[in-house]
Amino acid sequence: MIVSGPAVPRRAPYVAPLPLSAVRLDPASLLGRWQELNAAATIPHCLENIRRTGVIDNFSRLTEKPPPGKFRGFWFADSDLYKTLEAIGWEIGRSGTDQWADVLSEVADLLERVQESDGYLNSYVQGSPDKERFGDLIHSHELYCAGHLMQAAVALHRGGGDERILAIARRVADLIVKTDQPLLDGHPEVETALVELYRETGEESYLRSAEAQIERRGQRTLAGGFGPQYFQDHLPVREAIEAIGHSVRQLYLAAGVTDLYLENGDESLLAAMEQLWDSAFGSKLYLTGGHGSRHRDEAYGDPYELPPDRAYAETCASIAALQWCWRMLLATGQARYAEEMERALLNAIAASMTTDGTAFFYSNPLQLRTGHDGSSEDAPSERLPWYDCACCPPNLARLLASLHGYAATTNASGLQLHLLSAGTFTAETLTAVVETGYPFDGEVVVTVSGHGELAIRVPGWAVGASVAVTGGKVLAEPVPGDYVRVACEDGATVRLSLPMVPRLTRADERVDAVRGCLAVERGPLVYCVEQADLPAGVLVEQLRLDAAAPITEERVPDDLTPVRLRLTGIARPLETELYKAYQPDAQAGTPITVTAIPYHAWANRGPGAMRVWLPTA
Amino acid sequence: MIVSGPAVPRRAPYVAPLPLSAVRLDPASLLGRWQELNAAATIPHCLENIRRTGVIDNFSRLTEKPPPGKFRGFWFADSDLYKTLEAIGWEIGRSGTDQWADVLSEVADLLERVQESDGYLNSYVQGSPDKERFGDLIHSHELYCAGHLMQAAVALHRGGGDERILAIARRVADLIVKTDQPLLDGHPEVETALVELYRETGEESYLRSAEAQIERRGQRTLAGGFGPQYFQDHLPVREAIEAIGHSVRQLYLAAGVTDLYLENGDESLLAAMEQLWDSAFGSKLYLTGGHGSRHRDEAYGDPYELPPDRAYAETCASIAALQWCWRMLLATGQARYAEEMERALLNAIAASMTTDGTAFFYSNPLQLRTGHDGSSEDAPSERLPWYDCACCPPNLARLLASLHGYAATTNASGLQLHLLSAGTFTAETLTAVVETGYPFDGEVVVTVSGHGELAIRVPGWAVGASVAVTGGKVLAEPVPGDYVRVACEDGATVRLSLPMVPRLTRADERVDAVRGCLAVERGPLVYCVEQADLPAGVLVEQLRLDAAAPITEERVPDDLTPVRLRLTGIARPLETELYKAYQPDAQAGTPITVTAIPYHAWANRGPGAMRVWLPTA
Repeated sequence: MIVSGPAVPRRAPYVAPLPLSAVRLDPASLLGRWQELNAAATIPHCLENIRRTGVIDNFSRLTEKPPPGKFRGFWFADSDLYKTLEAIGWEIGRSGTDQWADVLSEVADLLERVQESDGYLNSYVQGSPDKERFGDLIHSHELYCAGHLMQAAVALHRGGGDERILAIARRVADLIVKTDQPLLDGHPEVETALVELYRETGEESYLRSAEAQIERRGQRTLAGGFGPQYFQDHLPVREAIEAIGHSVRQLYLAAGVTDLYLENGDESLLAAMEQLWDSAFGSKLYLTGGHGSRHRDEAYGDPYELPPDRAYAETCASIAALQWCWRMLLATGQARYAEEMERALLNAIAASMTTDGTAFFYSNPLQLRTGHDGSSEDAPSERLPWYDCACCPPNLARLLASLHGYAATTNASGLQLHLLSAGTFTAETLTAVVETGYPFDGEVVVTVSGHGELAIRVPGWAVGASVAVTGGKVLAEPVPGDYVRVACEDGATVRLSLPMVPRLTRADERVDAVRGCLAVERGPLVYCVEQADLPAGVLVEQLRLDAAAPITEERVPDDLTPVRLRLTGIARPLETELYKAYQPDAQAGTPITVTAIPYHAWANRGPGAMRVWLPTA
Repeated sequence: MIVSGPAVPRRAPYVAPLPLSAVRLDPASLLGRWQELNAAATIPHCLENIRRTGVIDNFSRLTEKPPPGKFRGFWFADSDLYKTLEAIGWEIGRSGTDQWADVLSEVADLLERVQESDGYLNSYVQGSPDKERFGDLIHSHELYCAGHLMQAAVALHRGGGDERILAIARRVADLIVKTDQPLLDGHPEVETALVELYRETGEESYLRSAEAQIERRGQRTLAGGFGPQYFQDHLPVREAIEAIGHSVRQLYLAAGVTDLYLENGDESLLAAMEQLWDSAFGSKLYLTGGHGSRHRDEAYGDPYELPPDRAYAETCASIAALQWCWRMLLATGQARYAEEMERALLNAIAASMTTDGTAFFYSNPLQLRTGHDGSSEDAPSERLPWYDCACCPPNLARLLASLHGYAATTNASGLQLHLLSAGTFTAETLTAVVETGYPFDGEVVVTVSGHGELAIRVPGWAVGASVAVTGGKVLAEPVPGDYVRVACEDGATVRLSLPMVPRLTRADERVDAVRGCLAVERGPLVYCVEQADLPAGVLVEQLRLDAAAPITEERVPDDLTPVRLRLTGIARPLETELYKAYQPDAQAGTPITVTAIPYHAWANRGPGAMRVWLPTA
């Protein structure tokens, strides 16, 4: 049985997704372990907390007249349930589990009972007598929630053949299609969902509705106190080529526009998306793949405004960025989009979850100061088990359950590997078995059965990458930031060697917030220094890196941080005056060596200061 | 007639305020010009906008039953009127004007009609049928508004002998005193106001009520979505020694606590305020005297979290800081408090208003980037004529009208000059006539009639200051950060020479956001570089300062920027990659010289990039 993954365009100009059923990530690989952890811990944790916080009750109270009690949580709490359902859908497709059959049945019963005869379904509006349906779309998130229901329905249908929730979602979509009012939601999301529902059902009116809503943007009718940028209504999509406003809204909209392009082929949409992408990834991206530098409005900042300490870098934004990049990859076949998927996945997204899969960061800063006040939910010192605004945990769950769907694509020539992971990938004419300890090791060995072209992405940092092939012919040598291409015969082996040398990275000088600092990277992983690894009496803030000193590796038997790095520098004395007269002085200090660990593993040893960007001596 | 100014403690352990009637700032001096401008332009502008935005209507509609129309503006809009009334009170005291007699009479009529028989007065709560008085003090700002009414009443009584608004305010205060409910407002302000009302009326229950409210803080009963820090309810005031949460709330509370100390002499309060002050001014202060580094929640950040671009540095916060420092000065007689009053006044506060007194900044960043999106009210590229949340403009008006009240103090020994300005200052036994072009020139010449000790503050930056005296004896030589003290005979002249050499200032290395940067200062003024002063084709972001090169002065016949500075450096080429491999390289670039102007004069030549902190070559 073919199980399709997320985003399956009807047009595939360059590459098409490999079905989920054609991919198996090695359970011992980093990505494979995350998928197992997600199934065993994160999805159950989401279900438990969704129930605990009243999300199910918000629906069940509506089965009584008048509804008892009150609506609980944020007005878009329905979406937390829907995202978790989506995760379950993909997980069923991945593992064939039936452990959530009762939950799905319970929820389907409930949604069927609560859904109005014309298809309307939103537990907040239905449960609030003073609310009018579609009466406050700028704030209400009604279409946003509807979109997540559609995505859940698509995942459950693809993953497990569910028809009931698909029918519920279609009735919602049908209502949206036939509503006379020019609908436009303050939070984009339904656009990409309607396109996916069109793909799954073939119902063209869903695509037309997505198109109409996308074309409707930019009239500044959505403004309110936040301004039209926040709601992505400041400019028509073809002119809105600077990444701006609420970052998740920006990125979901971009995913929707790219989905629309994939179906209707309107090149003006792709041209706008390419410019928008250059803005987001060329001047507003954190080194970790985080998006959104402002806590205020959860928004993108000005170009090069990228403070590491107040990085908002919402988990949902990095997930949305990955989803958008996936669609840009499908639209263009270009490696840079896969490269950014990997950056986000292995750094910002990986950092957002504990190793037991049950605590999360919502924002993902690149620095935590000594003396940080971690009392607020949006800047805690450690991961929290749940959030009042619980968008991120179930978003992670749905991403992780479908992660294998983002790893590879196919086309008439053969197979393309974008996310390097141990696993098995099957295209029409060839199957590739990948063995590698990536992202910690750089040797990627692929054994091919069948025949055809195998393309493996060579990361942009992999200067000096080399390939050795038996039973095949190299069509394109490995070049960083492009694909190595090999024409494979049955039984061919392709060994790609990526140099995993620790390296120092600097930012464009316009990134004022990290002036005079360097980051340490190794392979695709960003590293950081934590207070826990410093000698007693030395604060993270005192460390100055010696950029000329060699960086050495430490291998440790630890799944989380198997490769640690030793850095050399000095510890500067603390100062006592906030502002003082400038005196040219040498950077005196005490010699010091410190351990750096992968950024994604930070904050697992109690609260403490942390830095990705290290000042140099 | 003696006209008292703001904050007139009944105890004066070190120094006591000089009455407003004993001070006249030279109308040609910078501070004197601001006062004239305030009277001629800012106060009328506030009155006009208060009327235009419905603040008066909010009261007048309540004279009809049922009230027509709706309440307009923010729920604390009453305070905009009250702050403007306070400005008028001080201005009457300063100039004796009667130009606002009709307005005062109209407002007094209205307030008397609207005030309920038991004294309650709040146009939002009274005008909203669903609101209960004191039912939502965490958000409602009822006591905050009441506090501003009391401060207005005190100013009008001191400045013009008004009794009507004083009576209205007393009825409000009496109601607060006798309310059984343990009142605690989410926005501190009434504390300092009640103490002042006590000072003006002698009614001890007002002092006791302020004390009770201050002692009530720290039980975390005020939390809501913002958390107890935001509302200044996270710790009892004696333990809350880190500046945290909403900065204006923090600073108004600190002013109130210090006022309480000044009256009750509880040394544990002063000890806590001194520690809090060290936190605010030792690790959370902008070089310009701005407070609050976070747009989110208008809040203080962690220690040393001081980004120049996203500095919130609300105008109201700098005003509140000045008011708190004034009280700390009265409590201790220490020059450091006056020094910080001056820093804020001549930089952050001065920058917040246009030269015509009718447009304002709410936030006062130290950097504006090329490509800045200035579309939001809290980070515009230029000053705006008014704000939806209009707290800042009338706050400026009340400060400027009373500015001469913060300039000098007296005690049994004689006279102390804290804010250096041309003007006349009269203490009991001596009068000082000050002639100076300060803050642009460093020569301060004081002619004394009568006899007694004259103390003049020597700013902390004034290394090498000297004094020459005729007809008097130097008791304490000029030391930066302390007072030069001279025993004066009748006719004595004291010439204090402050070296106005341009200087480079750096920040504690923990201020990551300005690493590798220097600021240029001259005297008490912070300078900045604006795009308008750069050659075509060179962005502010490309400038690198040569820290070893001399800085030269340019004198120009311009009230706003009479002294400009010429800086030398290089222009760096723009880069094209956001992140790249580190290569040790020389900072190559094109030699360049640029003009710097005082920070307070920025953004008067159209929108454009600006920097206070300049990267070095």
